[in-house]
Amino acid sequence: MALKSGNEYIESLKNLDPKIYLGDKKVRLLENPTTMTVVKANAKVYDMALDPKYEEVMSAYSPLVEEKVGRSNYIYSSRDDLLKRAQMAVLTSQVLGTCNYRCPGADALTALASTTYEMDNKLGTEYNKRFNNFLKHVQKNDLACSGALTDVKGDRSKRPTQQDPDMYVRVVDKNEKGIIVRGCKINQSGAIASHETIVFPTTSFREGEEDYALSFAVENGSMGMTYISQYTPFTAERALASDIRELGNPEYGVRETSMVVFEDVFIPWERVFMCGEVKFTRKAVERFTRSHRMNCGGACKSGFADLMIGAAQSIAEYLGIENASHVRDKITEMIRIRETSYACAIAAAVSGEEEPKGSGVYIPNEMYGNVAKVNSIYGFWDLMEMVGDIAGGLSVTAPSERGFKNPEISSYLEKYLKAAAPADKRLRITKFIQNWIAGLHGAGTWHGAGPLQTQKMAIYRDFDLENAKKMAKELAGISEKEESRAW
Amino acid sequence: MALKSGNEYIESLKNLDPKIYLGDKKVRLLENPTTMTVVKANAKVYDMALDPKYEEVMSAYSPLVEEKVGRSNYIYSSRDDLLKRAQMAVLTSQVLGTCNYRCPGADALTALASTTYEMDNKLGTEYNKRFNNFLKHVQKNDLACSGALTDVKGDRSKRPTQQDPDMYVRVVDKNEKGIIVRGCKINQSGAIASHETIVFPTTSFREGEEDYALSFAVENGSMGMTYISQYTPFTAERALASDIRELGNPEYGVRETSMVVFEDVFIPWERVFMCGEVKFTRKAVERFTRSHRMNCGGACKSGFADLMIGAAQSIAEYLGIENASHVRDKITEMIRIRETSYACAIAAAVSGEEEPKGSGVYIPNEMYGNVAKVNSIYGFWDLMEMVGDIAGGLSVTAPSERGFKNPEISSYLEKYLKAAAPADKRLRITKFIQNWIAGLHGAGTWHGAGPLQTQKMAIYRDFDLENAKKMAKELAGISEKEESRAW
Amino acid sequence: MALKSGNEYIESLKNLDPKIYLGDKKVRLLENPTTMTVVKANAKVYDMALDPKYEEVMSAYSPLVEEKVGRSNYIYSSRDDLLKRAQMAVLTSQVLGTCNYRCPGADALTALASTTYEMDNKLGTEYNKRFNNFLKHVQKNDLACSGALTDVKGDRSKRPTQQDPDMYVRVVDKNEKGIIVRGCKINQSGAIASHETIVFPTTSFREGEEDYALSFAVENGSMGMTYISQYTPFTAERALASDIRELGNPEYGVRETSMVVFEDVFIPWERVFMCGEVKFTRKAVERFTRSHRMNCGGACKSGFADLMIGAAQSIAEYLGIENASHVRDKITEMIRIRETSYACAIAAAVSGEEEPKGSGVYIPNEMYGNVAKVNSIYGFWDLMEMVGDIAGGLSVTAPSERGFKNPEISSYLEKYLKAAAPADKRLRITKFIQNWIAGLHGAGTWHGAGPLQTQKMAIYRDFDLENAKKMAKELAGISEKEESRAW
Amino acid sequence: MALKSGNEYIESLKNLDPKIYLGDKKVRLLENPTTMTVVKANAKVYDMALDPKYEEVMSAYSPLVEEKVGRSNYIYSSRDDLLKRAQMAVLTSQVLGTCNYRCPGADALTALASTTYEMDNKLGTEYNKRFNNFLKHVQKNDLACSGALTDVKGDRSKRPTQQDPDMYVRVVDKNEKGIIVRGCKINQSGAIASHETIVFPTTSFREGEEDYALSFAVENGSMGMTYISQYTPFTAERALASDIRELGNPEYGVRETSMVVFEDVFIPWERVFMCGEVKFTRKAVERFTRSHRMNCGGACKSGFADLMIGAAQSIAEYLGIENASHVRDKITEMIRIRETSYACAIAAAVSGEEEPKGSGVYIPNEMYGNVAKVNSIYGFWDLMEMVGDIAGGLSVTAPSERGFKNPEISSYLEKYLKAAAPADKRLRITKFIQNWIAGLHGAGTWHGAGPLQTQKMAIYRDFDLENAKKMAKELAGISEKEESRAW
Repeated sequence: MALKSGNEYIESLKNLDPKIYLGDKKVRLLENPTTMTVVKANAKVYDMALDPKYEEVMSAYSPLVEEKVGRSNYIYSSRDDLLKRAQMAVLTSQVLGTCNYRCPGADALTALASTTYEMDNKLGTEYNKRFNNFLKHVQKNDLACSGALTDVKGDRSKRPTQQDPDMYVRVVDKNEKGIIVRGCKINQSGAIASHETIVFPTTSFREGEEDYALSFAVENGSMGMTYISQYTPFTAERALASDIRELGNPEYGVRETSMVVFEDVFIPWERVFMCGEVKFTRKAVERFTRSHRMNCGGACKSGFADLMIGAAQSIAEYLGIENASHVRDKITEMIRIRETSYACAIAAAVSGEEEPKGSGVYIPNEMYGNVAKVNSIYGFWDLMEMVGDIAGGLSVTAPSERGFKNPEISSYLEKYLKAAAPADKRLRITKFIQNWIAGLHGAGTWHGAGPLQTQKMAIYRDFDLENAKKMAKELAGISEKEESRAW
Repeated sequence: MALKSGNEYIESLKNLDPKIYLGDKKVRLLENPTTMTVVKANAKVYDMALDPKYEEVMSAYSPLVEEKVGRSNYIYSSRDDLLKRAQMAVLTSQVLGTCNYRCPGADALTALASTTYEMDNKLGTEYNKRFNNFLKHVQKNDLACSGALTDVKGDRSKRPTQQDPDMYVRVVDKNEKGIIVRGCKINQSGAIASHETIVFPTTSFREGEEDYALSFAVENGSMGMTYISQYTPFTAERALASDIRELGNPEYGVRETSMVVFEDVFIPWERVFMCGEVKFTRKAVERFTRSHRMNCGGACKSGFADLMIGAAQSIAEYLGIENASHVRDKITEMIRIRETSYACAIAAAVSGEEEPKGSGVYIPNEMYGNVAKVNSIYGFWDLMEMVGDIAGGLSVTAPSERGFKNPEISSYLEKYLKAAAPADKRLRITKFIQNWIAGLHGAGTWHGAGPLQTQKMAIYRDFDLENAKKMAKELAGISEKEESRAW
Repeated sequence: MALKSGNEYIESLKNLDPKIYLGDKKVRLLENPTTMTVVKANAKVYDMALDPKYEEVMSAYSPLVEEKVGRSNYIYSSRDDLLKRAQMAVLTSQVLGTCNYRCPGADALTALASTTYEMDNKLGTEYNKRFNNFLKHVQKNDLACSGALTDVKGDRSKRPTQQDPDMYVRVVDKNEKGIIVRGCKINQSGAIASHETIVFPTTSFREGEEDYALSFAVENGSMGMTYISQYTPFTAERALASDIRELGNPEYGVRETSMVVFEDVFIPWERVFMCGEVKFTRKAVERFTRSHRMNCGGACKSGFADLMIGAAQSIAEYLGIENASHVRDKITEMIRIRETSYACAIAAAVSGEEEPKGSGVYIPNEMYGNVAKVNSIYGFWDLMEMVGDIAGGLSVTAPSERGFKNPEISSYLEKYLKAAAPADKRLRITKFIQNWIAGLHGAGTWHGAGPLQTQKMAIYRDFDLENAKKMAKELAGISEKEESRAW
Repeated sequence: MALKSGNEYIESLKNLDPKIYLGDKKVRLLENPTTMTVVKANAKVYDMALDPKYEEVMSAYSPLVEEKVGRSNYIYSSRDDLLKRAQMAVLTSQVLGTCNYRCPGADALTALASTTYEMDNKLGTEYNKRFNNFLKHVQKNDLACSGALTDVKGDRSKRPTQQDPDMYVRVVDKNEKGIIVRGCKINQSGAIASHETIVFPTTSFREGEEDYALSFAVENGSMGMTYISQYTPFTAERALASDIRELGNPEYGVRETSMVVFEDVFIPWERVFMCGEVKFTRKAVERFTRSHRMNCGGACKSGFADLMIGAAQSIAEYLGIENASHVRDKITEMIRIRETSYACAIAAAVSGEEEPKGSGVYIPNEMYGNVAKVNSIYGFWDLMEMVGDIAGGLSVTAPSERGFKNPEISSYLEKYLKAAAPADKRLRITKFIQNWIAGLHGAGTWHGAGPLQTQKMAIYRDFDLENAKKMAKELAGISEKEESRAW
């Protein structure tokens, strides 16, 4: 069986040598406490696929390699697959309390399976064949794939060709063996700890922008690739922790991203899955986002919501306020938000379609995926607000749990921070809550799976306004036939 | 084939003689313009089941009578049935722009199919047998059944037995042939134009309240039944209309309800489906609300939303503002609200369960049904707000279209109310919009399928808080085993 | 003393002969039940100025005529005047439960006092002299003035000169004696029952649009003027009422508006206050809206909110649910909304300024006036939602109180609609609530004092973004001096 | 002149020796980078009172010492004073981007001026005399006073006497010279860097709880006092910063609070201002909160909003999206939120009252103070959401600006993070934004000036529901006189 354990995954990372910078220092993936949170989260995902409790959701049988593969490396081939995919996103969020780091890669694989199939059909290219060879390699070796979408973009009021041409990743040269690429992908969650990175267009491109219509796979640590990691207050807090058990999410931390710089990186043709086909960029991106908004936008956040609801109820009990009507009312509202996001993800899954017909690849419904994302982010700040309301001011003013180790103040902490529960438990759950409400999750959730405005555009575009007008006018008694705009 | 046409339905009503009061007058069902809107809506529903365009959704094959029956008289026996049921609710809303009047009855039939099955199994009663006989009668004759849930309740701070005992419908006497019932159901949508009324408990009852644990079917117009209909500004407007085409929803009007008084009405035992089994009232009500919140709470309102969105886009075009960014933004938000409600209804359907096991009866998921309802009503006022914003002040200040008939002012109306469309079309769609935003729909939607507070209680109760706490504590590193409240 | 009583006002109306159409019929102001609601509301406002309980707010000493005048005819000359003006708006709303019909006129008078002063100063015109003569006439005779702003506008995507030239009221001819005007003002609240109408530009005009830069006063019933009144379900309900005590707001009804058509109406020069000065239209409109958004947008709605809160608490007590935590929570939220609107109105008043300097005319602060309006309308639908939640479904399904007069059903109504209060009281307050939540108030409030988008533009324009950027950059440590857009 | 400069203030701190713990270490106030942010913020406030640009707002003439004093040590004696007080809160927020650390102290002084006056009048005590002596000392020496309200409270379901008696600060002994106090105040913003701490009840107490009805002043560093400071990710980030210019708010950081433990601290009688008078605790607390909700709850957050709006507009320009309609719309909404909070603060100030009559002490209006707070916190998460939306994902994923110092990656940062502005500016304002949206401000703002539920209770209590009911019933035509609950 090809499925790796967490330890085997960690072992496999030793063969890679990614150039990672954090702050102003170069760091080693398996040594730095912050980069290690990504490794641990990935390792846990590997372990979950082997755990009988989770395996049905976390793995799937792949006809391509005729064995079980991790669900993140699996191409969805039915609505039921899509539903399981959404469940996987909930489950990993519940278990990790942070990014599972595999969604963009998984969603890029599916979008490529669909789009390369269509390109080969229509253009007579060999992208799908190459892609399937690559996919076999990934599935057989149970590799972690990162999906790299977001370009740095530069001046948003300009097209790629109207400014520094490297603001979107592009082909700068080609030869018989392959292509040379340059540019930078940003907001890359967990890319530092994956085996492969799937580069994919961030948006649709137009004629004249062929150099940007580009998709390929590249091994982590390839020559010319540099990671510059995010640096947040949480990076510092972890660096200074005497014990990770003082931290809000001890093992898995916050979502860690990086910029991935491609300085003239060579990609052999067998790893190139799109190169110049601008007309297919819109569909490729759309297929990616349809999956990604269901998974990362909707389902994943339901798992986070579960943790916030659980924490809210826990702290309420610790404080002795769990029966207050306003507390119950807030928890009810938190549940409503959680279930709304997940209901939209379910609707996206069960309304998914084979795309294109004959490909065998299933993609979630676009409308519900986008609506899932929008509801998740509208609700997420409210979740933060409500668990913060219940937890009280201590959620931002808590002293360090390290204080328990100093006898000059430990008895003060024990005496004065006890409530209906002892001080240590109360402080622990409070720190856990701080991680949710006084940190990166709000804005991170907002932007994960793309900015709101893109979802709004998709929602407007996807709805059949003509039909809605027709129904309204029919009922109102307005005759249709003269309805051309020549009133 | 048993399915009636709309005309056959109307014909069949002539055999009934319901006592209906409107204002201070007794009125005849088939003669009064307001009661006729209910008849027309019902007739349209009958016709839709025969229309090839709609029949797949509007009818279903019933094994009980071995033929096709109207979906409102069908017992859901799979998740796919539930999904079709939700689609039916959307569809009738789109076509009627008002209540289809059949949901409470349909949802009561299904709840009874499930609950009588369970009662017979556990108690050895014959309720299910009676119910199936009744159902055959209904299906074979394609009867319209109204569901009567809401009791008048009296003083809400008191239980049924602590006040006038008739504030909830109850058994006042029994004999060998049947029972005598007294009380009043209120907010009965369309009951005046149904063939049968299925009376059902409005809430769960406790020991000592056996007289209220009561369900039965009664033919419309039975001795002792009196309908007192709602009287609203719309009743008056229709009464005074010179032509229904001046009205906001010309054919089908607003949802018409009535109080149904039962003054010592005799019900034969073969029509009694629950009588005293207080322990089963909770489940019975829960099963009803699970269906009803999916259908009436969630899906139905998506159909209304389609009409409001269509009207918003139409008036925007008529005014020449359809490309203004704030208009597109509002329409996008209207779509988001619409699709959220429907996504929750879909989730309720595809997560439905056979209940109880072995019964063959499928009931939608409770959580998503309740969430569907809550999202619908939170969003509905917003829909009203947005279409009203786009339509402008004329949505409340419009003169009557009757003015076109008076030559002293018709040219003024034509000249001064034209915009990017002629005045008549603009005024027509504006009146249609008025019907949605300056009338009964907001509060009506809010209360349809039960008050918000009951949905909140269901949502709180349905969520697994213990599991959420467990996941949060596990990730935070708080040991479970000492978690009993003896900290 | 010049102040008229309500009866004297009604008497004075007999001298006017406005051409009013309602539906397709011509009606007489003092005879039709709907037009009479406007007369009664106006009469009440007259009486309030003479009532010792209200006179301090409702009247003011005018140095121009050296006596007390109604506050609606008074030019605000201090911040305290502005505060009293806001209080007047609250007070009349509380007493009438509908429009007091005098705000647009009052706000137009003040805007003209300010703008004619400035025009005369800068252009050497005589508008201010004319205006003061007119104002003396108004004050001495205690005349009711309507303010007519909103033009019909036609196709919103076109300027006045790009379409039928009459879509905005304009000068079509001039001679030595005066001007001839044509066009139509719409949404004119209560204009039918005022003595004078002050016509005023609806928006700012540009060079080439001089014919539209127009302000004048015209006596109600002047030759060429025609009123076409709104016709709503409430018009019909009142027409059919056997007793006004069955109606939601028995005496004063809903806000009644009309279109006012000017078909080549002659206006003598002494009543013309602006004619062609396009450059002053922006300021004139801005001064009007600054007052109007404080009064009609903010303060007035606080008075309505008081009535809705009072009704919510009353029905809660009648139903026996006033101590339920969710009821108290909703009432608390209703109060928050109410007080927020009024706080913004207060801020607008106490931050008002003399404008222009030397004129002695005080105008409320623009930002707070606009914010008052926006908060009012965002909150208003919420108020409707909450009082409707508390009142229950009966707020839309109530039978007519006329039913109490029919012995066949009166005992049913008494028995089955009693709660913790008798049925008649419960039904009465429910009907009162219906008037607020299932009728014209939501959309009417939204559009009163102008569409949301204009308030948004004012808010954006009024804020000192440059200063905000400067403060942010200073604190962030970004040097200002290189901040020109030539980065 | 008594007013200290910032440097003089810092100099004066050298005479104090507070026992401060941060993490598990004892730290020195003037040496630790985190504690120094508090010192610097305080010093800036001192300097502002001497700066001609700010002095009118930041200082006031005190008749008590017959000279100018810092406004935080001044007793408000008019509505204009209250308005200036609100302006001060805005101003310091704009300049510091964090807490000015003086509001609780200032608001406690005013509440004591009022309450000790009333106690002496009614009880013949000498509290007011003592208080004025203390106040003179404070004013003459321009001392920074911290206000200590929030007790740790322990189990919220229990009263102070039903649990560990030290969960609320209390008197444990008394003698002729003074009292001995024990307990712990929590969430004490900036107390570590003040000269004096004014201890004040956190809530009203009942008979039997006299030991808790306690107010006194104590010098920072008195024997028995220990500070245990909050420890957040921001503490660590500052500790590890190579240059404070890498930080989100370089000079003044985030709001720093601590627990203040009183272990049997001796307080001489001349510093005791309340001791056992349980009946006066409700009024004392109410007067404090009336000021504090206007200042800290409402006005202060308007200043923060200015910074967020300024940052939003700056980053929009840096990215080249400042003219996108959705960006302008978001900024408009941010302004609306900002101005609403401030309008409520203005209303609270100009509706303030002398309290009690004769005292000369002015206290803001309770309703508007509470409404200001609630609107601020409801809006604050929205502000965060919107500036985060505009800033993009980089607001959480930004690499450290320290990277510019490493030549291996600096050119990558410059190249790939430039937009319509150079990378350094864009990264700087992004880090500034991160400080607002991905940190302590959301939950901190929510709880500052007390939890929401207390504001809700005040709003409900403060509104005249009886009068609102009366107005509604009058208009509805319901007779008042029979309205006693004996229906």
